Order: sequence, then structure tokens, then C-alpha cells
Amino acid sequence: MRFIWVASQVYRRTNRPFSASALIKSKEHKRVFVLTLQITPFPLALSKGQSSIVVGGVTIGGSRPVVIAGPCSVESREHALEAATEVLAAGAQLMRGGAYKPRTSPYDFQGLGLDGFKFLYEAKQLTGLPIVSEVMSAKQIELAEPFVDIFQIGARNMYNYELLKEVGRTRRPVLLKRGLTATIQELLCAAEYILLEGNTQVILCERGIRTFETHTRNTLDLSAVAVLKSLVPLPVIVDPSHGTGRRELIRPMSRAAIACGADGLLIEVHDHPCDALSDGDQAITSATLKEIIADVHKIHSALFSVAEAFGETLLKLAEPVHANAGNAR
Amino acid sequence: MRFIWVASQVYRRTNRPFSASALIKSKEHKRVFVLTLQITPFPLALSKGQSSIVVGGVTIGGSRPVVIAGPCSVESREHALEAATEVLAAGAQLMRGGAYKPRTSPYDFQGLGLDGFKFLYEAKQLTGLPIVSEVMSAKQIELAEPFVDIFQIGARNMYNYELLKEVGRTRRPVLLKRGLTATIQELLCAAEYILLEGNTQVILCERGIRTFETHTRNTLDLSAVAVLKSLVPLPVIVDPSHGTGRRELIRPMSRAAIACGADGLLIEVHDHPCDALSDGDQAITSATLKEIIADVHKIHSALFSVAEAFGETLLKLAEPVHANAGNAR
Amino acid sequence: MRFIWVASQVYRRTNRPFSASALIKSKEHKRVFVLTLQITPFPLALSKGQSSIVVGGVTIGGSRPVVIAGPCSVESREHALEAATEVLAAGAQLMRGGAYKPRTSPYDFQGLGLDGFKFLYEAKQLTGLPIVSEVMSAKQIELAEPFVDIFQIGARNMYNYELLKEVGRTRRPVLLKRGLTATIQELLCAAEYILLEGNTQVILCERGIRTFETHTRNTLDLSAVAVLKSLVPLPVIVDPSHGTGRRELIRPMSRAAIACGADGLLIEVHDHPCDALSDGDQAITSATLKEIIADVHKIHSALFSVAEAFGETLLKLAEPVHANAGNAR
Amino acid sequence: MRFIWVASQVYRRTNRPFSASALIKSKEHKRVFVLTLQITPFPLALSKGQSSIVVGGVTIGGSRPVVIAGPCSVESREHALEAATEVLAAGAQLMRGGAYKPRTSPYDFQGLGLDGFKFLYEAKQLTGLPIVSEVMSAKQIELAEPFVDIFQIGARNMYNYELLKEVGRTRRPVLLKRGLTATIQELLCAAEYILLEGNTQVILCERGIRTFETHTRNTLDLSAVAVLKSLVPLPVIVDPSHGTGRRELIRPMSRAAIACGADGLLIEVHDHPCDALSDGDQAITSATLKEIIADVHKIHSALFSVAEAFGETLLKLAEPVHANAGNAR
Repeated sequence: MRFIWVASQVYRRTNRPFSASALIKSKEHKRVFVLTLQITPFPLALSKGQSSIVVGGVTIGGSRPVVIAGPCSVESREHALEAATEVLAAGAQLMRGGAYKPRTSPYDFQGLGLDGFKFLYEAKQLTGLPIVSEVMSAKQIELAEPFVDIFQIGARNMYNYELLKEVGRTRRPVLLKRGLTATIQELLCAAEYILLEGNTQVILCERGIRTFETHTRNTLDLSAVAVLKSLVPLPVIVDPSHGTGRRELIRPMSRAAIACGADGLLIEVHDHPCDALSDGDQAITSATLKEIIADVHKIHSALFSVAEAFGETLLKLAEPVHANAGNAR
Repeated sequence: MRFIWVASQVYRRTNRPFSASALIKSKEHKRVFVLTLQITPFPLALSKGQSSIVVGGVTIGGSRPVVIAGPCSVESREHALEAATEVLAAGAQLMRGGAYKPRTSPYDFQGLGLDGFKFLYEAKQLTGLPIVSEVMSAKQIELAEPFVDIFQIGARNMYNYELLKEVGRTRRPVLLKRGLTATIQELLCAAEYILLEGNTQVILCERGIRTFETHTRNTLDLSAVAVLKSLVPLPVIVDPSHGTGRRELIRPMSRAAIACGADGLLIEVHDHPCDALSDGDQAITSATLKEIIADVHKIHSALFSVAEAFGETLLKLAEPVHANAGNAR
Repeated sequence: MRFIWVASQVYRRTNRPFSASALIKSKEHKRVFVLTLQITPFPLALSKGQSSIVVGGVTIGGSRPVVIAGPCSVESREHALEAATEVLAAGAQLMRGGAYKPRTSPYDFQGLGLDGFKFLYEAKQLTGLPIVSEVMSAKQIELAEPFVDIFQIGARNMYNYELLKEVGRTRRPVLLKRGLTATIQELLCAAEYILLEGNTQVILCERGIRTFETHTRNTLDLSAVAVLKSLVPLPVIVDPSHGTGRRELIRPMSRAAIACGADGLLIEVHDHPCDALSDGDQAITSATLKEIIADVHKIHSALFSVAEAFGETLLKLAEPVHANAGNAR
Repeated sequence: MRFIWVASQVYRRTNRPFSASALIKSKEHKRVFVLTLQITPFPLALSKGQSSIVVGGVTIGGSRPVVIAGPCSVESREHALEAATEVLAAGAQLMRGGAYKPRTSPYDFQGLGLDGFKFLYEAKQLTGLPIVSEVMSAKQIELAEPFVDIFQIGARNMYNYELLKEVGRTRRPVLLKRGLTATIQELLCAAEYILLEGNTQVILCERGIRTFETHTRNTLDLSAVAVLKSLVPLPVIVDPSHGTGRRELIRPMSRAAIACGADGLLIEVHDHPCDALSDGDQAITSATLKEIIADVHKIHSALFSVAEAFGETLLKLAEPVHANAGNAR
């Protein structure tokens, strides 16, 4: 009772959403009532974000992990159709592919642009696989809208708040990648920008952070998966391709991602990695993809019994880092 | 002769600009001719970028360092006018001020928007100080154009290539800040995106990089100043306010920046730092600004004699990290 | 034939061990012979390091993963004996415990010293669990020798080359932790210091690296496990306790470590984490340890069938990052 | 009065040194009394560390900056004597040189050992320059004692607490380098280990930290100089050689170091950098050293007038980051 009164006072003063938690702790045989009113920087991610998102019949954040696969960039119509057929055959449930590519150098291949979106759409019509593709400006969102099912915000644009607001104004799911050296809190604040515009479908994606290690392109931070799952209800997927930058590490890191609770994987596939116009070093073949998907199911079955729902298991797995639900009486 | 022939062959094959260098090295009493044809990732920064930029009568990259000062965000019309008067009195040559603010949290003060640009313009009319202000989208560039003299691209948008192209299409000078953990090469590639659209007026800005140190908000990388000056002709300025995040460090780091060859400083000033709507911790008063400007002149006079031009001295100071001009005969 | 001749010439010139690899690559329908003679910085780690180490009947690096568990510091005789009994009951195969503790502040608890080693030895006599404990100087090695089965070199001492030489001169297995921000190459060079003194029993340990993330104490770099397994034959274990610094992340990260091929886990256990004299935040109870050990077996069985040896499977799993064995014909 | 009572209570409970500060702040026209009792992790660095240290007639931390110069490693008797003569002629006040070298690879040149110390001692007898040389173990301290004036603890050993205790037990000044990615707090805690053994002569050295930048070997963190000077009385010097790893950056960064308040410089000099047995890339010639020393004096004279003592000026320059002296009445 008093709890609600205090909370309403806080709201009146700050005019800003907050999360409240009340705990009864036992300390040295005494029970202590601890009331925490936190003006969390991501209240909507906590309360409004959808825990599962359905796209073209596929559920992301549901009881089974999903695999999104495809080439780094779409290179031609044939390439897109062939890639879609192959990742479908390997067992992927969604297709990824870049039409506009953010490249460090302006002289590197920048993608096919609008044609890229169109070829992906054709690939979808052929295979039924929903499409994930990156957008980098308000104009590209407009161009992509008729063709793409999930808008990807790349790591380089995680701090591009104007772009986050733009995708927030659409009602299309957004796959939001963690920035190159972004903290978990910054990633959730970026998600908040999208949610604040009314779009409740945000999928978080761990894709490796910059460290001093040179054997890998980035360092895949799998603990971020467990932390994110404990902080917010949003689905969390892992991109082991950018996360490691090396073909031979995709399979072990995919296994590890599922084992620590990821809702899915985002994997670059190219059947002639050496000829790929971008990121060939980290692309696997569809044959390897098939093996990875088999691993995913093995691990998922071993750890999460069919009887209980995946979500509940996870809840038990990752005891909350911050208790957000109170138990005041 | 043969050198030119080889170079032209490379160009024919790659259809891409490159830098060539030829060296005659002495090694163990033998002279070795070393020809290096490097498809540098930033050929235009090397060849087309302006080494000095004149804005409203002030030369950035000229024989004397410049100081750009003003509040983090414009908070009101009065605030803008007062701030301009004060930084002018303290000796600053340009004014900075934010109308649109990129904030990690969507719940933090986001700036006055268009009004901010208008108030800055009024401040300019009052004091004559040219205006530097940040833009974050194509739309904001349009809004800023009538009011702002130099477009600032903030650290969070250094990788926002669509925005870089947009400011590249204008003919207004661009102050490009280094990204949160960007390498020098990535900063120069970002400059290249602007130059490639035909805008030759790019000012580079070191503003601190993320490290593990917690006593400072960022770690100001002053060696980047000397490296940049040795790599490209573009003017390089230093932002000790974001670079350290602590008021008491602005003065020593401003001194150090000038001592190692920076073309100028970008400093946040607020006469009531505690009441500032953003970044109060790192704002200095105009009284301290005056002392800093006095230091700047003392160091500059001590190190760089009046007789010789500043630019030439620097050239001697920072022997080139990569020799780009050959001495083949 | 010629291959061997070239190799012997290299050795004659450098008088230094090296690794040679020969590959026949197919490129555009032509077969190309590529001979790589690399003066690797860690030749002994490649050629002399033991892939499995037997301590008190337990095989580290064998066909099944091992779990080393125990308190951060030994706090008393009772504490050591109780802890040993509990981790044995939970299914651990070795016991860890600190007698000398490297602490950032000289005012923090520094461990029980020699008594700590003695209590651990008593615990071993009670339970049969071999003991892993840290040493930080030549003198401590001497003190530990009668009581400890595996010498641990902590992350802070990975660059302490004099200490590495000292443990290299013993014939006791060494558990070598990766430094706070050490690269994989630096870790292998540290191992090389030990091997060069004639000690072939080195166990590598990933324990998290320093990054900008604040939700976790360190960032556990699980891709390092797959990279290390592909580079050298040495056993690789993972310490999720220091790697994350948070109790609730130990279980998901332990699962992930085994899934990506680790040979074992090093876990801090304390039955009253709140009262622990050091690192209480990251200690789990023996009840949670039991659940983790169950997970380890589930994942291992699911991924690595009983028929084939664990080692071979791994070989297939992690296709070599650098091909070190040639296939010249 | 009450202030002292509270303080004594804290001491009674914690039995540990602490720093107390009391402030009277004005906030919204009300005066607020703020009492802060901080159990600082480095109380002795605050209270017992010497602000200036006299070695062989040279004062480090006095009214003028000092320059310590010499080769990375001592390569022969002739080399040591020649180097000493040259750095003396260039204006250096102390000589540095490595006898035992910590190298990442055990196959790299490890130094001349004891002979190195002896040659340095001869160089001292010839030139009068006091000697700074690194020690890495208790045994090396013993060997160095008759020959070396200042013990250097290298970056790789900053966390080697057993070694810190050993040099703490001597009564020789210690030059303590910041660890590869150590925070300022960790550096001061390392100093505390030395002070706690009764050695009050600790010189702190900023030598660059590991970042993602690849143009420089490390990133010289000059803001650390200003922060350290504001936190503790100990002398602070800068090593631009390891701090940048590139010859052409030594001069600009030396200028910057003095401009932001460093008490001195530690510079690697080698008259045939290409033939140096270690770290040739970052060695400058004695001719450049002479120019740098001239710069040092120019900047120091320009910024710090002769009338007032250097120390007092600095005090004004760097307003304290943490107010440690109270003004309660």
C-alpha cells in the first residue's frame, strides 16, 4: 500500500518512468525491508518490449532457437536465389543478406542497393524465408519497407539515435546489433529509443566487441547473452560470424551461444567464401550450416526438456542480475 | 620514368586512387631501390584536403592555433547571447553550442532543436563569432544550413556513413570527431567519405577514446595529433572537455595539446557549470578559458618562433610516420 | 625431400626452433604449392607440450571434461575440510583454494600463507582430491611443493617471466592463467617460458579479459578456447568465476565453455558467499556446482558420442586456424 | 572537535588508515556541512610518500623537470660508456639502461644480466650520472644493489606484489611504471605496497596504456599525469618512448608531457637505432635528445615563472580532483 504511494510520489516529481522493487532480505536473523525505486534508463525495454516476435510464421524468442542465415552482401539475383535455397535446405528459418553495406572505406563494395532488396524479396517468394536486411538512413527504410521483414541496425549505427527513432516509427521488427565497444547499458538505451516511438518488436544481437585480441576479428561476449536475458524480456540472438571473424570458430561459438541461452543465431553463409565480395573470411558453407543446426538441436534438447517451456527454463537458468519484480507483503 | 609507367598500370587495373612512394635505402653498403605502390584507404585526405580553412575571417590550420568555445547545449536565447559575449571577451575565435544533442538515454535533455540554431545565429550577429554546431541527420543539415558555419559530426556518428556523405555534399566546413574507440585509420576513412563527395574542408578532432581508466571520462590521445599531422594535411584540433570529462584537467591538457602541435582547441564553457543541462562536470568558466588562452599563446610563442610559419615548424617537428613523397632519381 | 632441406637450412641460420607447413592449394583450377616456414614464437608449446596431464589419477585433457572447485581463499582448517567434502560430493575431481592471494590493495586479506597450503593438504588426505593453489614467488613455490599438486600462476603474474622460469624448473603441472588483457599469443609465449625450462605439463586457463563492460567483472573470451585448441595441443580450461565475477552467470557460462570445447572448468565455491573473505560475489554454493556438473555431462554426451574419443572430436570441431601439419607429397 | 571524534571512531572500528575531508558547501543559499571519511586504498601514498627525491645530487620532483636517458638494453661495455657520455653531453641528468629485460618471447634478447649492471656502474663513474635500471626478482635486486641508484619496476611487473614488497624493503628510490592496462587506482595501490614496507621514495611513471590504436605501440595517457599530481604528492614522470613506440613522436609528446605538469622524462636513446638489440623503432639519437631538452626548458620557462616555485604553480594548475584537506571550522 505504502509502496504504491511512494512510487506515485516519485513519478509526480520526476515525470519519468521508473522501475520499483521491494525485497525482504534476511540478514543476521533479522528481516529487512528494502525498497528500491530506480529511475532505470530503459523502463520500456523492461515493461513494453515483446519477449517473442512472430515473423512470417517463425517465432523469435519462442520455445526453440531460430537460425537466420545468408550471405554478407547480395551479389546478384542468382546469388540471392541460390543462397536462399541452400540455407532453407540446411534448416535455417530466416534469411539474412545485405543490400546496403556500411564499409569502413568508401572504396569498398557498398552493396547493390535497392536491387539487393528486390532480389531478397524474390528469394523470399521462392523459399518462404522471411528476410532480415540492414538499413542505414530514413531513405533506405522507405526503400526497404516493401521487401524486408526485419530491419537490421548494424553495430556502427547503434549510437545513431536519429535512425533508431526512424525504425521506431515503423511497425516492423528491428534486429539491433550491439555497437563495436558498446556496453550492455548503452545497447538497452538504444533499444529504448526504438520502443519510445511505439515499436515493441526489438531483437537484441550480440556480435562481438573490440578487444586487444588479434586472433579473432572481435571478441564474442557470450556473458552478455545471459546478462541481457536476466535484465529484459527481449529476444537475444548471437552473430558468431562478425563475433569471431573466422570461419573455423563459427561452429564452436554457435554451440556455446545456444548452451548459454541465446534465442537464435545470425550466421553468414557463402558457398564460395573466397570469391565473396565482402567478409569472405568469416563465411561458412551451407554444409557446415547444416551441422551447426544439428548441434543447436542436440544442445537444446539436452539442456531444456520438452516438457517445460524454454522461457521458464531460462528464467531458472539465469537467476536475475537485478531483481525487478518485488515480493513485498 | 619507369616509375610513372608502373603507377599508370596499377591505376588501369584497379581504377582506384593510390599513393606511390619510391625510396633509395642504404642497407649494408648497398643501395636498394624500394618502390611502394599503396592503394591507401584515404587518397583524397592526402591530396585534396585543405590544410587551412577560413571561416568568417578566422583561419583554422593557419599560423596560430584557434580556440572554439561555448556551452555543451544552448539552453535559451539569453544563455546563447551571454555565452557568446563571454567567450569573445575571453579571447575565443569561434563559438560552439549544441542545438541537437546525441544522448545515450532518450530521457536526457535532447537540445532545443531548430531554436537552438537560431539563438546561435543571433549570438553570431552580436559577437561576430562563427558558429560550430552538431548535425545528426540529413534533415538537421537542412535546418542548420542558414545558421551554422561549421557542421560538427559527433563521435557517435563517425561511422554513420550516410551522414558523412550528406555533409560531404554541402560546401560547408566539417568538424569531424573521432569515434569512441575509432582508430586513426578509421577516422581518416570517415574523412574520405566526406572528401569523396567533393567537400575539401574537413577539420579532424581528437576528443578522447574509451579506455579502462575511470578517473577520466575518456583518455585524450594526444599522440593521435602528432600522427594525424604527419599523415595528412588536414587541420587537427583537440577537445579536452570530452577528452577528459573533468573540469580540472582542461587547462593542463589544453597546454599539452598545443605543445604537441594541435591547430586549435574545442572547449566547453558554462558560467554556472552546476546548473548546466548537460555535461556540467566538464565545463569551465570563461575566467579559466581566459587563462587557458594565455597559456596557448605562451607555449606557441616559446616553441614556434614568429619568423617561421607555424605549418613549416610542425613539418619539422613531426617527421613523417609514413614517407609519402618519394625521392627517386 | 626438398622440404626437409629448406627446413634444415633455416635452422642452421637462425639456430632457433620453428614450425614448417606445406600446403597444396587449389586456386582457379591450378594447384599451388605453398611452403611456410614460420619461426613461431612458441615452438615448444606446439611440439613438446603434453595434451593430457594425469594428476592423482585424474586426467586433464582426456576424453571427459574435469571440474576443479573450491573456495577463493582458504579461511581456516575447518573451512578447507568442509569445502573439500562438499565439492567432492558435488562431483568435482580436483580442489582449488588460495593460500597466498594477490590483492590489488595491500590492506585486503592476503591469505593464510603456509598454513593455507597445509590445510589444503589435509583436505586432500580426507577426500583424495588433488590440490591446485597459486604461487607468486620462488619462495612460495618452495613452501607449496610438499602440499600442492598443481601450481597456479595467476593472471597478474602471467608476464612475470622470472616466476614462469621458476615453475618451469619444477616437474609439477602448471595451471597458467591468461593475463588481464593478454593476447592469445602472449599467453602462449608465457607457456613457452615454462616449457623451455623442461616442464611439459602446462594447462592453459581462460579467465576473462578486461573490457568496457561493467555488468561483468571481466569478459569471458570463449572464442579463445577454440583458438587455443586449434593452435596447440595443451589442455585448456575455463574459469567462469573470475571470467564473469557474478554468481548468476557461472552456470550459463560453464555450459557454454563445455559446448565450445573446453577441457574443464575452474569454479569458486563457498557455502556462505556473503561471508567469504574474498570474491564472495562470484562464489556459488555446492548445490549449484552439482547442477553445473550435471549440465557438463549432458552437453558433453549430446555433442561428443561415447564411441569416439573426445580429443578426436574436438579436432574435427575446430578446424585448424593455422594448418601446422603439412600434406606435401 | 566532533570531526576528530568521528574520525577516531572510524579508526577504532576498521583499524586501518583513512583520509578524512570536511567541506562546507553552499547550495541554494544554504550552507551544508559535508563530512567524508574515506578509507582510501592508498593512505600512505597520500601521507608518507616523498614529493621530491634526491639521487646523486639530482632532485626528482623539484622545481625543474629532469631527463633520464639511455639505451633500452646495455649491449656491451663500450656501448654503455659511449651512451653515458652522449646523454650527458645532450643534457640528461640521469642514465637509464636495461641489464635484465622482460621480453614477451623467451627467444628474444634477454639482456647482459649482472655484467649489464657493472657496465652501467662504470658509466656512472665516468660521467657522474646516477643509474636507473630494471629489476624483476628478489635475486636481481640483490645483484643490482651495489651498482644501481634507482630500481625500476617495469609495466609487466606492476601487479607483481611480491616484487613490490621486496623493493619496498630496500631504501633505494623506486621508479614504478604503470601496468599495460592498469588504472590510476591500481598504480597507486602498487605504490602503496612499496610504501607499506617503509620505502618512501616512489617515482610514478606513465608509459602508455594498451588501446585499439595501431599507429602507436601504446597510447600515452598524459591526463594521468595531471590526475596523479592532483591525487598524491609523489613525483610523476613520463616515458614517451614506450608510450608511443615511434621515434618521430618522442619530441612532440615530450613537449606535451612537460606542458601538462610532468616532473621529468624517461627516454630511450640509441645512436644506431637500426642496430639496437631491442626496441630500435622507438629510440632517438642524442642529437634529438638535445633538441628535446631545449624544448623542455622553453616550455617550463614559458609556463612556470622563476619567481614562484614549480610545485606551487602546479598546485594552482591542477585543482584537486578529490579535495583531501578539509576546511571545517
